[in-house]
Amino acid sequence: MSSVFRASTRLRSAARLPAARALSTTAGLRAAEKPYFPNEPTAPSVSGPLPGPKNQAATAELDEVFDVRSLNMLTDFNQSVGNYIADLDGNKFLDVLLLFPLVTTTPHLLKAAGSPEMASALINRPALGNFPSHDWAHTLKTGVLRAAPKGLNQVFTAMAGSDANETAYKAAFMYYRQLQRGGPEVEFTEEELLSTMNNAGPGSPQLSILSFKSAFHGRLFGSLSTTRSKAIHKLDIPAFDWPQATFPQLKYPLEDNIQENAAEEKRCLAEVERLIKEFHNPVAAVMVEPIQSEGGDNHASPAFFQGLRDITKRTNVLFIVDEVQTGKAQTAGYYFGNPALRPNKPYRQFNTWMGDPARALIFRGIIEEVERLGLVENTRITGDYLYSGLARLAEKYPQHFQNLRGKNQGTFIAWDTPKRDQLVAKAKSFGINIGGSGASAVRLRPMLVFQKHHADILLEKLEQIIQAI
Amino acid sequence: MSSVFRASTRLRSAARLPAARALSTTAGLRAAEKPYFPNEPTAPSVSGPLPGPKNQAATAELDEVFDVRSLNMLTDFNQSVGNYIADLDGNKFLDVLLLFPLVTTTPHLLKAAGSPEMASALINRPALGNFPSHDWAHTLKTGVLRAAPKGLNQVFTAMAGSDANETAYKAAFMYYRQLQRGGPEVEFTEEELLSTMNNAGPGSPQLSILSFKSAFHGRLFGSLSTTRSKAIHKLDIPAFDWPQATFPQLKYPLEDNIQENAAEEKRCLAEVERLIKEFHNPVAAVMVEPIQSEGGDNHASPAFFQGLRDITKRTNVLFIVDEVQTGKAQTAGYYFGNPALRPNKPYRQFNTWMGDPARALIFRGIIEEVERLGLVENTRITGDYLYSGLARLAEKYPQHFQNLRGKNQGTFIAWDTPKRDQLVAKAKSFGINIGGSGASAVRLRPMLVFQKHHADILLEKLEQIIQAI
Repeated sequence: MSSVFRASTRLRSAARLPAARALSTTAGLRAAEKPYFPNEPTAPSVSGPLPGPKNQAATAELDEVFDVRSLNMLTDFNQSVGNYIADLDGNKFLDVLLLFPLVTTTPHLLKAAGSPEMASALINRPALGNFPSHDWAHTLKTGVLRAAPKGLNQVFTAMAGSDANETAYKAAFMYYRQLQRGGPEVEFTEEELLSTMNNAGPGSPQLSILSFKSAFHGRLFGSLSTTRSKAIHKLDIPAFDWPQATFPQLKYPLEDNIQENAAEEKRCLAEVERLIKEFHNPVAAVMVEPIQSEGGDNHASPAFFQGLRDITKRTNVLFIVDEVQTGKAQTAGYYFGNPALRPNKPYRQFNTWMGDPARALIFRGIIEEVERLGLVENTRITGDYLYSGLARLAEKYPQHFQNLRGKNQGTFIAWDTPKRDQLVAKAKSFGINIGGSGASAVRLRPMLVFQKHHADILLEKLEQIIQAI
Repeated sequence: MSSVFRASTRLRSAARLPAARALSTTAGLRAAEKPYFPNEPTAPSVSGPLPGPKNQAATAELDEVFDVRSLNMLTDFNQSVGNYIADLDGNKFLDVLLLFPLVTTTPHLLKAAGSPEMASALINRPALGNFPSHDWAHTLKTGVLRAAPKGLNQVFTAMAGSDANETAYKAAFMYYRQLQRGGPEVEFTEEELLSTMNNAGPGSPQLSILSFKSAFHGRLFGSLSTTRSKAIHKLDIPAFDWPQATFPQLKYPLEDNIQENAAEEKRCLAEVERLIKEFHNPVAAVMVEPIQSEGGDNHASPAFFQGLRDITKRTNVLFIVDEVQTGKAQTAGYYFGNPALRPNKPYRQFNTWMGDPARALIFRGIIEEVERLGLVENTRITGDYLYSGLARLAEKYPQHFQNLRGKNQGTFIAWDTPKRDQLVAKAKSFGINIGGSGASAVRLRPMLVFQKHHADILLEKLEQIIQAI
């Protein structure tokens, strides 16, 4: 079946479109040194027990109407500045968790939020596929598409990562069946038209998406079927019978485990190829995160991803990359290049909203700030500096900083520690907003405006925290 | 299995939360007569062939990056006023299609769009379940929850109808399994925890949602499995093996077919009960639209819906109502009342965005306008007036106005005609933006600011259009 495939185009799904790596300017070099926010606090400040009385009261009020058990803290964004987020009790935390591109208002973002275009996008919300605003092409070309990977010059916009992924899956299934059928001009059979109304084959075929163990791709029914990070996400929810392959479990430091890691990646690639060839529900696409994020900050080498691309080309299945946490765009969609990924008829890949023009306008503002402030370069410089500092801590406290990873990956850095939950819980009282991923990783997700002087504070506080737990 | 159920709570899913019927004031009576928009055009105006040259050029530009085959027209919202939408060539169309609550800016909505709260909601976008803004409870209580049906005092916010429905399905599945397991305190078994990571039972059980033939509930993998309106929506996409029941096919005029319609509804209810008791994948919830909208504007009587509620109570399955087109809220979520519908542990019903505070703020502005302008009352008055006019046309042109329906349902009116597609296509040249649903229905979806003088224009133009086709 798969022999009729030609997957010469890379389908890319971006849960959050990739702002961070979109643009690089030399402005960053300068900016990394000079504070972006002169009015930022110079250090975190926490007084009294957490959560404070005002936060407790407000949480109780919210609990009346909204489930608060996953709540970390109610955030007072009016009092938050730069990299510091505030609660209602006046506490200020240095944030390395929120995954924001940049928090709190900059004049440029305020202008984008207050523009007449934005007011119209907020108030007049048509079905985007039927009645788009006349300037929708302009919004896409000056915004979302400026961050598109080379060669992927089209976009299907979406609301959030889950539906971005699911529409990408739908594109893959339609593409697969179209090739199987013999091309876009071949009509559906009567049997297909009738059976799909009963959710049965051949109209609703038992095809699959291959994802990886520990992957996170969202929590709707199709995306949750490819999510394999935690049982609590999946329990009691019906799922599709789709295959999972092993994601490489690399050993650190990388430079001391070169051969072993290469063998591990080779083994995983072989498993992918075997599943594509043998799994009982044919695989239409392979879905992967560039860095497995929710699942524990699991990295793989460029050679592994090239290997995946080679296999998907060879076996004629599509290759989808989910920038769920590496993106930081606060909007969603999937990029693609091959025009054949537009299905053969209208209304096949369609939904009412097809994304949100208001969010597309904010994304454009973010991209412009990334460029103006040189935030890619800033993140590279700050990341290298922060990684070096963590490496020093790892030498000093090897039991607390295991498997340090994310070298040369900007500030997307993580490490394992057996006391992860204690560290994360304790950090708040030291004024640090930090979180974990997977079973034992501390993950860093600072904003793109995180700078060396913030890294210094984080390193100092981390040392204090591990001494306190 | 179903005997362990207790579904004393009605779970309500609102693809668009129901602005239209939320609030009723006496202001409407006056307002229905006095124009809401003194600067509106007095009549549609169309010059030259459609689409005009500017719209053609802009569509070609959009086509480079975005699929435009489902495009109806590029809309210039800057030039649109009240009930009239404009294209780039200066044409103005009276709109009875867009499903907007109210299009174009009112001073009050402009204020909501330009508020500091809105700027913060647009720029600072945290994971809503983890780091909500401190005023999130206030936003919900003064907005989304003011439109909640009586007794449903909690909300799980979502991005769009599809994910609102799917999170409601997830709530139903978790609730079903929790009762089956013996209560919220019963822990998951090791077998459940392991099997769900393989998308297999018992952790990922083969439960189902019962929906109706011709239903539309969205286009993601779970919601699409309950959508049964058109094959083109479903072809090539894997679907769950879930049951569908027949939605009543009423005969019109209702007053001449009372017994036959009652028998039809009884037959459909019996089918629902049989499917709940016998379908091989146990039914956790019944999903229904108050008016089947995309599927052809199919109405049923209040007795039918009460019958559904009685059956779901008796058989212990949840009852979900999808206000996909009856809502007009431009945001999404599901309302519920039973606290047991919060799952037994955090992070079970959860996702990153869990809706969009910016859209919740606009919804609040809409609700306030609905109240201030008396739009529920206006829609009732205009709807009755419009229905009477259509009934007169139906007497004069019975072949063009069959099965007129929506009496006493505001402006949510439809009829069948064998020349539906010609009518819809021709209407643009007469300055009317109108659409269809199902195979042969013309559906009316004017804004809530549609008034008697607009109805007069619509009736006059409809007569001209059917004479021209």
